[in-house]
Amino acid sequence: MLLAPFLIAGHEAILNRQAAANPRPFDTIGEPGKAVVIAGFGRFGQIVARVFRMCGITFTALDASSEQVDFVRQYGNRIYYGDASRLELLEAAKVGEAKLFVLAIDDIEASVRTATMMRKHFPHVPILARARNRPHYFRLRALGLTAIHRETLPASLDVARQGLLRLGFGVAAAERAVTLFRQHDETELEAQLAVRHDEAQLMEMAKHGAAQLRELFEADAVGPLGSFPRLEGGGRAD
Amino acid sequence: MLLAPFLIAGHEAILNRQAAANPRPFDTIGEPGKAVVIAGFGRFGQIVARVFRMCGITFTALDASSEQVDFVRQYGNRIYYGDASRLELLEAAKVGEAKLFVLAIDDIEASVRTATMMRKHFPHVPILARARNRPHYFRLRALGLTAIHRETLPASLDVARQGLLRLGFGVAAAERAVTLFRQHDETELEAQLAVRHDEAQLMEMAKHGAAQLRELFEADAVGPLGSFPRLEGGGRAD
Repeated sequence: MLLAPFLIAGHEAILNRQAAANPRPFDTIGEPGKAVVIAGFGRFGQIVARVFRMCGITFTALDASSEQVDFVRQYGNRIYYGDASRLELLEAAKVGEAKLFVLAIDDIEASVRTATMMRKHFPHVPILARARNRPHYFRLRALGLTAIHRETLPASLDVARQGLLRLGFGVAAAERAVTLFRQHDETELEAQLAVRHDEAQLMEMAKHGAAQLRELFEADAVGPLGSFPRLEGGGRAD
Repeated sequence: MLLAPFLIAGHEAILNRQAAANPRPFDTIGEPGKAVVIAGFGRFGQIVARVFRMCGITFTALDASSEQVDFVRQYGNRIYYGDASRLELLEAAKVGEAKLFVLAIDDIEASVRTATMMRKHFPHVPILARARNRPHYFRLRALGLTAIHRETLPASLDVARQGLLRLGFGVAAAERAVTLFRQHDETELEAQLAVRHDEAQLMEMAKHGAAQLRELFEADAVGPLGSFPRLEGGGRAD
């Protein structure tokens, strides 16, 4: 379990992840399952939960912390404390009846354990997953998950896009550059998946990919949609 | 310094953040400054760097790790190892000549220290920043930064949007829900900024905000753009 403080200050939920020592007993008495189960109630899971709550979708939250999270219980939602990879907890949360399982656990090992249990015991429940990084992504893919979102990728692409605008790119050019990168990155990720245990081949692929991306961009930049601006001074490599 | 493994497997840069003990000497001899300086070369900074490299924009990278990162030196880029909050390092990297400073450091304290130095010594250089969470965001705002991206927010909103689609929302309805949430969240964040040291008031504001968001959504759902679908069974709270 990560001890890093994933606190969302001033928010409904200030979770103390170090308070997981004494999980409360499960509450299983005769309640119907919810359409959505959200495992992991840190920064990521809480945002998903808040959007769902706004839309009137009730959910069951699973989290390792037993700190009180008042807002979950509003609007008929429930929360269970404990290790989401334990079958008893998943059964108590009636995961088998869920239309959707959101895997938002930050800790890689706990996330992979939970995904493994879900695939083994509830293979019919669709999973939307958060991945910390590429190795985490590959491990979830290897378990058969397909809808996996790398947690910092969209924000870093937003910063890249903003950066391009500050450096003189137009809105459309910046957007096109980011889209081109994203498409290339996804293709590369698929190719890496096949050789993910071979570090030398991964390195070779990455090197080749960088050159390829540059070429793609250059080809795109002189294409029918117009050219990208050149920066003055030291802005561009020759 | 965080010891969590921010490795991007199979990528150009496999950084060993524990190898920071022996920083290399700075390389300051008569080279011109780059248009962009990227501080923090983990998952986040590397994505920004790869987009820039694709676009032919050269940059200087600053990172606490002295692990070799071959690809930075391709295409005329440079990397300096060490604590990015040290004035000598910032000066060696010719930050004062930069058109843009990307603050992509993961560790909150190191990020805030670096932002403090930047604001004090190079107030004219625009900063695009990554924030881990709300407290980090507030601290950067307090230093005068305005372009701050919360690192997992866009990915968690992507998951929320995908979740709504899986639960029967149409594409436009899911998009509208996420947009509404995002706007509300930004307004709330501004309001929280003013009272960020008052935990009781933050809590009260969050509680009120949740109810308000629900009302906004309900008002929007019956508006001229059509209504949101109702889920069968346990999908919605009554």
